Amino acid sequence: MKIGILGGGQLGKMFLQQVVNYPVKTKILDPNPNCSCAHLCDEFVVGDFNDYQTVLTFGQDCEVISIEIEHISVKALKELQKQGKKIIPSPEIIELIQDKGLQKDFYKNNDIPTADYFLAQNQDQILEKAKLPFVQKLRTGGYDGKGVQVIKNKEDLKNLWDKHSVIENLCEIKKELAVIFASKNGELAIYPPVEMVFDPQLNLVEMVKIPAEISPTVQENINNLVKKFAPLVGEGIFAIELFLTNNDELLVNETAPRVHNSGHLSIEACYSSQFDQMARILIGYPLGNPLNHSYAAMFNLIGAKNGKANTFEQFSKLLKIPNCSIHWYGKDDLRIGRKMGHLTVIANSSSQLNDLIQKVRNEECNKLTLNFFIN
Amino acid sequence: MKIGILGGGQLGKMFLQQVVNYPVKTKILDPNPNCSCAHLCDEFVVGDFNDYQTVLTFGQDCEVISIEIEHISVKALKELQKQGKKIIPSPEIIELIQDKGLQKDFYKNNDIPTADYFLAQNQDQILEKAKLPFVQKLRTGGYDGKGVQVIKNKEDLKNLWDKHSVIENLCEIKKELAVIFASKNGELAIYPPVEMVFDPQLNLVEMVKIPAEISPTVQENINNLVKKFAPLVGEGIFAIELFLTNNDELLVNETAPRVHNSGHLSIEACYSSQFDQMARILIGYPLGNPLNHSYAAMFNLIGAKNGKANTFEQFSKLLKIPNCSIHWYGKDDLRIGRKMGHLTVIANSSSQLNDLIQKVRNEECNKLTLNFFIN
Repeated sequence: MKIGILGGGQLGKMFLQQVVNYPVKTKILDPNPNCSCAHLCDEFVVGDFNDYQTVLTFGQDCEVISIEIEHISVKALKELQKQGKKIIPSPEIIELIQDKGLQKDFYKNNDIPTADYFLAQNQDQILEKAKLPFVQKLRTGGYDGKGVQVIKNKEDLKNLWDKHSVIENLCEIKKELAVIFASKNGELAIYPPVEMVFDPQLNLVEMVKIPAEISPTVQENINNLVKKFAPLVGEGIFAIELFLTNNDELLVNETAPRVHNSGHLSIEACYSSQFDQMARILIGYPLGNPLNHSYAAMFNLIGAKNGKANTFEQFSKLLKIPNCSIHWYGKDDLRIGRKMGHLTVIANSSSQLNDLIQKVRNEECNKLTLNFFIN
Repeated sequence: MKIGILGGGQLGKMFLQQVVNYPVKTKILDPNPNCSCAHLCDEFVVGDFNDYQTVLTFGQDCEVISIEIEHISVKALKELQKQGKKIIPSPEIIELIQDKGLQKDFYKNNDIPTADYFLAQNQDQILEKAKLPFVQKLRTGGYDGKGVQVIKNKEDLKNLWDKHSVIENLCEIKKELAVIFASKNGELAIYPPVEMVFDPQLNLVEMVKIPAEISPTVQENINNLVKKFAPLVGEGIFAIELFLTNNDELLVNETAPRVHNSGHLSIEACYSSQFDQMARILIGYPLGNPLNHSYAAMFNLIGAKNGKANTFEQFSKLLKIPNCSIHWYGKDDLRIGRKMGHLTVIANSSSQLNDLIQKVRNEECNKLTLNFFIN
């Protein structure tokens, strides 16, 4: 079986590290000849995954095609599906998720709780209807915190983007959570929800940990939400980012139709990682056990400057921390704010985990902000 | 940093899966263009790792050179070391281990317990001195149970190999154990000893598990043995195969100067796997935590016929077993008795592990012997 993946970034890389455990051939499409996946697959094609003809040609000799980024040519995937290729997740779901406006409408139409919102085509429409404070999200093209801004006061209104947007009420949030699930022909594997700690300046996750500190009721509500959600989106692995309000209400923030940064700790902490689960789905194997055998925390390693990374000393310090695993993504250039890698610490108790988290934070040197690690 | 590895088999493959987590370039030498590592490294060179000139040329642009098989040109590694390359393990130790006769003398000279033996140059010398029953081991060229035979009675004497051999007393053995350790500049990481269950027909491991069922005294004796052994062999990762006699005496059977089949369960069960440890040593990072967070058992997946493998149905059954991970090595052809892959089950208790082991054994279908899995 040959599996084709659109995108050759870190998610693709970690998928390849896992899927090569199974008897499959792998093929990757990415515009960057030095991307993370370039030397880890059977075939590497340099090309634009947003280009209809490129994707169509790429997919011809693959039996299964999937993605590690959602900004790809849905039209080509639809055509490949017509030709009888297995496309996971479905092109229709990718299309829906590409547009944060359609995504919000989807939640509303399916009675999935989400923050109140309206759609606006431009600045004027926003100014006309929005009540301060609010969140502006570009309908398309945003990622990693880009394309999202909080408008707190009149002063901030100057920064409004004059583009198609989702305008959302700013909710009072107790915690940000995420839950990943894998779904395949009626089988459903739900990962333990993770708690996400955000860096307020970069609007990027500083740390993700399991177990999330939530009540059994919230845990049960998340499970029920996933059970309602999964049949709506079909086969694949999905990450739902959630807000937990001060009243312990859950609101869906957004969904990724793929493996997700918040699930990286599953590599070290769970019986079957999100990447293993993705491999099982694409090949058609039964799903694995998503539960965690260990407590875990994951920190992103983010560029603090532009140029080349000097990692040896810093990694030597970090790798002295017990039970610390580093994943360097092998990107060719360091850039400010770019996710360059991550590290995970795992533990057999909550107190050991807190101790290890403290040790990681003690090593955060040369930082611009809390999670700026790499110089 | 560029790391060169001699050998592109499964040990190299699992090393690559791990080492790509660090900022290094990888280069592999193997005679088979379709070997397990061919598409998982930055540079792949087709060539004979036993050929002096090939290895010398291969190593020119590498800073560190290591092995995943010990049948390589030691002479070339010695020359590369003279040129200032870091060679791990040392060429001298590889040379010693390549010859089971020198290995046995090394144990004897260093007061490392091992079964009584003598060295013989041919059949006549064996017939002259050996007392039945005994074990004949070819001094060079053996691997995976090949080149070793038990001579039980006069009848068996017909099968004697007329070659340079180690002739060893046949000990009464309660268990076979193995211990892996990583050693670097005074740092020492000792893995929990594993218990090996052998297939008597193939003389291949059927199953490896941790924790080994041994007394605290035996455990302590193993630790002391490693502490004595490690300074003798220098930097690297080493596997010591051990016999535990009926009197709870430990005897060293043989040593591998590299990652080892008996350590594969460390991928899923230990905080830092043997492959991570190897990566840390080669790069110069501090050693990881070798302890296990889970109970584990590993089964080899071995060819039951010559030809092509049909794995889908069998893997679908095996992957239904909770906490089961499969590692398929991606070798081009199935061959009778060839190690094609392995599977590991992990558990949070001894009784859960026994239950999972039973489930694996129930799935052993189409087998010629107990561990012949793959048709």
